[in-house]
Amino acid sequence: MFSGLPDSASPQNGDPSPLPISAIGEAGLLQIVQRYCPAQVVGDDAAVLAAPEGQLVVTTDVLVEGVHFSDLTTPAHAVGWRAVAANLSDLAGMGSRPQALVVGLGLPGSTPVAWVEELYQGMRDCCARWECQLVGGDLCRSPHRFVAITALGSVQPGRAIQRRRAQPGDWLVVTGPHGDARAGLELLLHPEQGSSATAAEREQLIRAHQYPRPRLDLVPLLEGIPDPLRIAGMDTSDGLADALVQVCQASGVAARIEVERIPISEALRQAFPAQAWEWALYGGEDFELLLSAEVSVAKHLLERLPGAVWIGEVTGWDPQGTVWLKDGQALSRQQAFQHF
Amino acid sequence: MFSGLPDSASPQNGDPSPLPISAIGEAGLLQIVQRYCPAQVVGDDAAVLAAPEGQLVVTTDVLVEGVHFSDLTTPAHAVGWRAVAANLSDLAGMGSRPQALVVGLGLPGSTPVAWVEELYQGMRDCCARWECQLVGGDLCRSPHRFVAITALGSVQPGRAIQRRRAQPGDWLVVTGPHGDARAGLELLLHPEQGSSATAAEREQLIRAHQYPRPRLDLVPLLEGIPDPLRIAGMDTSDGLADALVQVCQASGVAARIEVERIPISEALRQAFPAQAWEWALYGGEDFELLLSAEVSVAKHLLERLPGAVWIGEVTGWDPQGTVWLKDGQALSRQQAFQHF
Repeated sequence: MFSGLPDSASPQNGDPSPLPISAIGEAGLLQIVQRYCPAQVVGDDAAVLAAPEGQLVVTTDVLVEGVHFSDLTTPAHAVGWRAVAANLSDLAGMGSRPQALVVGLGLPGSTPVAWVEELYQGMRDCCARWECQLVGGDLCRSPHRFVAITALGSVQPGRAIQRRRAQPGDWLVVTGPHGDARAGLELLLHPEQGSSATAAEREQLIRAHQYPRPRLDLVPLLEGIPDPLRIAGMDTSDGLADALVQVCQASGVAARIEVERIPISEALRQAFPAQAWEWALYGGEDFELLLSAEVSVAKHLLERLPGAVWIGEVTGWDPQGTVWLKDGQALSRQQAFQHF
Repeated sequence: MFSGLPDSASPQNGDPSPLPISAIGEAGLLQIVQRYCPAQVVGDDAAVLAAPEGQLVVTTDVLVEGVHFSDLTTPAHAVGWRAVAANLSDLAGMGSRPQALVVGLGLPGSTPVAWVEELYQGMRDCCARWECQLVGGDLCRSPHRFVAITALGSVQPGRAIQRRRAQPGDWLVVTGPHGDARAGLELLLHPEQGSSATAAEREQLIRAHQYPRPRLDLVPLLEGIPDPLRIAGMDTSDGLADALVQVCQASGVAARIEVERIPISEALRQAFPAQAWEWALYGGEDFELLLSAEVSVAKHLLERLPGAVWIGEVTGWDPQGTVWLKDGQALSRQQAFQHF
């Protein structure tokens, strides 16, 4: 997303020469890392877990230094939190309950031991908040830092949220404000910007970037809806516009949305009035959810899910999956995040 | 393991300018990759699978270019095969049946499209051989290529192979020859070496490095043994010496092994007579298994598992986990693979 960032060394509390992991070796590093895993799953070739109730849901996400994070924008604790949160958001986007996750870590030998400890602390804090267990992983040497997480969850058969399940007549709902994470990144990269916002507002935007909150609070609400449950949607990690187009294309439906209904925080309006709408649609990494459901289900969620708002509806079948704006223009994915 | 290898471009059948993935973009790359996944799991935030029978087993392994593979030693198809095989070997090392795997891939934009296709073909071929499904993944830009795989399997409760379950009186069994993979790597890095072996022997060693075969043939044999089943062990991917010491330390037992019983292939003896024993103990990446079981179970496996041989026995309790050689010396992990 923000390429070309310098591969700078992490300043560790002013310590001019933090202890690198090459100094403690693999065994020393493993000892540190294993503190963050439950004792009963450590030390074998794989972790053994209870089988999930219902169906098994599995997702994987990779974060790469200089692409998804850098010491400039994301302290190690936040890298760990975000890496876990991104995976838990995918589980939320399936309507599934998290169970466990494993982490593959690539690290240069020069990586400070403290960076690895803070990374694991961030992963553990995010896991603990949403009652998910870190059950194992793999460490290896790499020219660049990266974090590859796989998360496992469970969902009752036939009740997963899927992109292809939207139908004409559905209401489109988003679970919260969009654009804050992109604004927070901007403030981290260019601290001189957004000066029209208060310090608290700027802090809120930075926090949205560094400490996103997956919308797993949706899951118990869905579990309370009796069978049959048909619900479409996905998380908005690649941007709300991307999610809208993906759901409509996968379902073969057209939708009409009212852009001005998309929730935008006061902080974003104050800090970046000119970019607010663009970032709300195309910024990405807010880790909210876009949902498409029949009116009664949508109303049920709108009444109970904090931050959820109606933004439009599915108007008919359409193999192109067009998302119409109020003024008759079609929404483009063009500005959406391209990984390559 | 072999650092400092050049990050050379892959020669694609003599094509001087293979199409890079940056030319087809993320959408084009996703289209290619999705051909290798079953249609019903593609396109959502996560894959939805049947819950495993028994307990869920999860393992993750990361391969990094220049550390675990390079264009010099490993064509893309073999990188894919090995990445899957390493994970399946961990499942075999738990006595579990593979079910599914997900792959996280980091790629520079300059990576040839053909390299990615061959990588996926290799992963699919290895999955197909051991009846495991590739169910999803994540692609992202990275300064270096890496492959992060998570594999899921299942095992009946209480019947997993674990390192800590060895007991005095157990026989120690290895499932096949050791050292070939290390010799194959040597031949790839230094083709002028090992010239005392025949072309077929050299080919066998190279194949051991590029196309390891996880010992999942053990799993149905274990399933045929009635309850209760106590079996200790692990895979030997980090070297047989490492596995011996790990099992003894985790179980708190001492063992005595007869080094000359460790199976060494004729190819290895011919190509590298001076290094054969060292590589058999410390070479790693043979992806065989070390098992520790009571005599009746060990005999059952020795009679039925191709290549399996007795190499020693567990002699008593020992908090240090000492592995004694015949001449009264203790086996060292010192030469074992250090990732950092």
